[in-house]
Amino acid sequence: MSLTEASKTTDADPDGGRRVGRRQRVLGYVVLVALPVVGCVIALVAAPGGSGAAAAGHSAKSSTATLLLAASGVLAVALGAGALAARIGQPRVMGEICAGLALGPSVLGELGPEVSDWLFPPDVVTGLDALAQLGLVLFMFGVGQELVQVQQSRIERGFTLVTLSSFLVPFAIGTATALWLWDEHGGSAGEPLAFALFLGCSLSVTAFPVLARVLTELGLLKSRTGRLSLYAAAVGDGACWVVLTAALALATGEGAGDQWWKLLVFAGTTAMLLGPVRTGLARVLDGPVRYSPAVVSTLCVAGVAASAGLTAALGIHQLIGAFVFGLAWPRATKRGNGEAALTSVATIAGLLLPFFFLGFGLSLDLGDLSLSAEGAVLLAVLLVLATVSKVVGAGLAGYVAGLSRTQALELGILMNTRGLTELVVLSIGHEAGVIGTQLFVALVVVTLVTTAMTGPGLRLLRVLRPAKT
Amino acid sequence: MSLTEASKTTDADPDGGRRVGRRQRVLGYVVLVALPVVGCVIALVAAPGGSGAAAAGHSAKSSTATLLLAASGVLAVALGAGALAARIGQPRVMGEICAGLALGPSVLGELGPEVSDWLFPPDVVTGLDALAQLGLVLFMFGVGQELVQVQQSRIERGFTLVTLSSFLVPFAIGTATALWLWDEHGGSAGEPLAFALFLGCSLSVTAFPVLARVLTELGLLKSRTGRLSLYAAAVGDGACWVVLTAALALATGEGAGDQWWKLLVFAGTTAMLLGPVRTGLARVLDGPVRYSPAVVSTLCVAGVAASAGLTAALGIHQLIGAFVFGLAWPRATKRGNGEAALTSVATIAGLLLPFFFLGFGLSLDLGDLSLSAEGAVLLAVLLVLATVSKVVGAGLAGYVAGLSRTQALELGILMNTRGLTELVVLSIGHEAGVIGTQLFVALVVVTLVTTAMTGPGLRLLRVLRPAKT
Repeated sequence: MSLTEASKTTDADPDGGRRVGRRQRVLGYVVLVALPVVGCVIALVAAPGGSGAAAAGHSAKSSTATLLLAASGVLAVALGAGALAARIGQPRVMGEICAGLALGPSVLGELGPEVSDWLFPPDVVTGLDALAQLGLVLFMFGVGQELVQVQQSRIERGFTLVTLSSFLVPFAIGTATALWLWDEHGGSAGEPLAFALFLGCSLSVTAFPVLARVLTELGLLKSRTGRLSLYAAAVGDGACWVVLTAALALATGEGAGDQWWKLLVFAGTTAMLLGPVRTGLARVLDGPVRYSPAVVSTLCVAGVAASAGLTAALGIHQLIGAFVFGLAWPRATKRGNGEAALTSVATIAGLLLPFFFLGFGLSLDLGDLSLSAEGAVLLAVLLVLATVSKVVGAGLAGYVAGLSRTQALELGILMNTRGLTELVVLSIGHEAGVIGTQLFVALVVVTLVTTAMTGPGLRLLRVLRPAKT
Repeated sequence: MSLTEASKTTDADPDGGRRVGRRQRVLGYVVLVALPVVGCVIALVAAPGGSGAAAAGHSAKSSTATLLLAASGVLAVALGAGALAARIGQPRVMGEICAGLALGPSVLGELGPEVSDWLFPPDVVTGLDALAQLGLVLFMFGVGQELVQVQQSRIERGFTLVTLSSFLVPFAIGTATALWLWDEHGGSAGEPLAFALFLGCSLSVTAFPVLARVLTELGLLKSRTGRLSLYAAAVGDGACWVVLTAALALATGEGAGDQWWKLLVFAGTTAMLLGPVRTGLARVLDGPVRYSPAVVSTLCVAGVAASAGLTAALGIHQLIGAFVFGLAWPRATKRGNGEAALTSVATIAGLLLPFFFLGFGLSLDLGDLSLSAEGAVLLAVLLVLATVSKVVGAGLAGYVAGLSRTQALELGILMNTRGLTELVVLSIGHEAGVIGTQLFVALVVVTLVTTAMTGPGLRLLRVLRPAKT
């Protein structure tokens, strides 16, 4: 069937109701369209003028209107930018991130500050921030789940070597860079060790979701390189969050004595979650009773929020609690109740993430990266270090483990995708005062550039060295 | 297979990873559990004491913690109450509504006001309210979609009669009651006509989602009574929202002159949505290009929010805009992209509705229904009128249209389910100052009682008169 034929059939079908009964349809329209209009006209003509309640209810009403309009604006811009990104061969999330940046002071704040003020008053920002927080903890739940999912994959030769190398090489280089950058770009927390650990993390992150998308698009998902990179990304991200926890504890530590009991509670909760809670959940999800996906997803979201909230209350970042709950939630089995719920949770996270990108964009002004020679050097050095450390760290290990040269290079390029995960890491570090603002903005740019490079890089590699496998 | 056997197999299966490789699993645990703990311990022991950033970031952090804990608390209580309701043979949503009421001043505010104040500070309420607003507009989108879905069902003999009668009889009785109630229970808007229209609506609402659930549980979904009641409920709800629009316009009207252009914009938008937008959406959704469910649901949510926000900005209630967008969104076809997205949107709405119940509970104190003789009379009269008008209005018409006496009674009991839709109607009316607080609380109680009666009523009917069909 050609495309034209397909679109012809489609044109006839959506109005399937036409066949069912034209009269009924017309009746439906009359009732549903004409009546509200007529009703409103009569009502307004009859309206005797101003009344007290109207004025009283007005401000609450207009704030709801602004919230809804702002939410739809954020989603629409994200959708448009995502479609644009897909059209030029980039992952959708790149477009969505850029949309968030564009709605912040970097672009909209420059072009039309009054639009920005009107669309995002403080009350609305608080509301949108709640949506962003929910989206973000659900995203981090997904990061934890990836590790649970790859745990069942067979470990082949070279997996461990590649995983270690693709994490440790960038991490070591990042930590070493800290010596050079500390004096000028240290954050307000004043913690050189936290700064070094954080820089190591920020070079060694690989974004699992973006990587999976790129692999799917290039048809590499089932190839050895693909499996290898996904495994290394999931395990590496896990290690990153561990190090990040330590760095945050260092940066926000208020003296050891005060924190001991919090730490014990956190350790206890983590053990509970990964032990009895995990077993109990698995029994419920795979048990004989069928629960509707709505109930299971509510349970899942409630658990994520509880774990995240508790961790935040203990002074450890909420996303670490969400990550731990992602590890605790048992992997979905074909027979169980969990699969549809996990899909829903991922959809909700994807739907709400544009609000995080908005918050991210609002918190960051690309103009802070002054266009001095110094700023350019910082950016260039970080970009080169990030790319080289990942390509060499992962690629060389892959070559040693028996990949061909082309495959090894492919692996290195794949592992250089930092995407969304890196942005989350950066915003946490900046918020906690671990890194300075200029370094933060530079690392955001590095993230965007390295993520954008992955697709074109792989395509270029295919043109230069056609695959033999 | 017995239950014990089933649970045994389940015990073995969720840990399928065990078979894949025990060593790998142990390694995973060591990396993922031990390391963060060790890292934190080292970090905290090394921490040199207080720092500036920690204090600065503290208030923002604790507000996020409270938001997440409050959200998880609301979801957990809703989940528990829903499970409890299901166990005693009630729809889950009844439990969720009661959970919302319990978290408000009626119960938690009485028992532990300090818990309530700690869990729901103003900032957190603003955030949760954003979640509730999103849930509510998505729910109203679903109400509109039901009408689109029933449009394709075959109209059988008696459908029109039953639909009209089950809407008009309670509506007429409700309007008549207004004469008696106006003096004492009129709202602050001071609009007798709006009050009368509103009372008519509040008696004639039938909650489609709860009805569908009850029908499924009783195995009546495909029976003639079931199809009849769903059709009548969907069309009746549509009519209700039309009348409600008029009542709201009356109550909040600020003089005809000022509102004319707003009305024109609303009529124009509605026509646009139901005309070109609907056709365009149908072409996209059923077209040859496959979009991921995430993209389609984002499009859907953005559209709902835009339509709702625009309507709210025009001074008409946001839920009416969401309802209109529900009418405009084309029904899902098997071949199209829309089905998974609609499921996701319904799941999100279901997930977020507990936050609406919370807001509802926070806005209402059951103690306002003073236990005087007068309050009891009001409650009893409304309860009898609501039940009788629905049972007679729908049942008699069903009998005339050829149902057996038992089936007609069944139909009448089914149509008496008011559930969630009625709560939404009531909260809008109360907010706009159409009805007084005491009447509002009484109608909420009537809603809960009539909804709770449906299941037991039908079961009782089956015991008394075993079905012959």
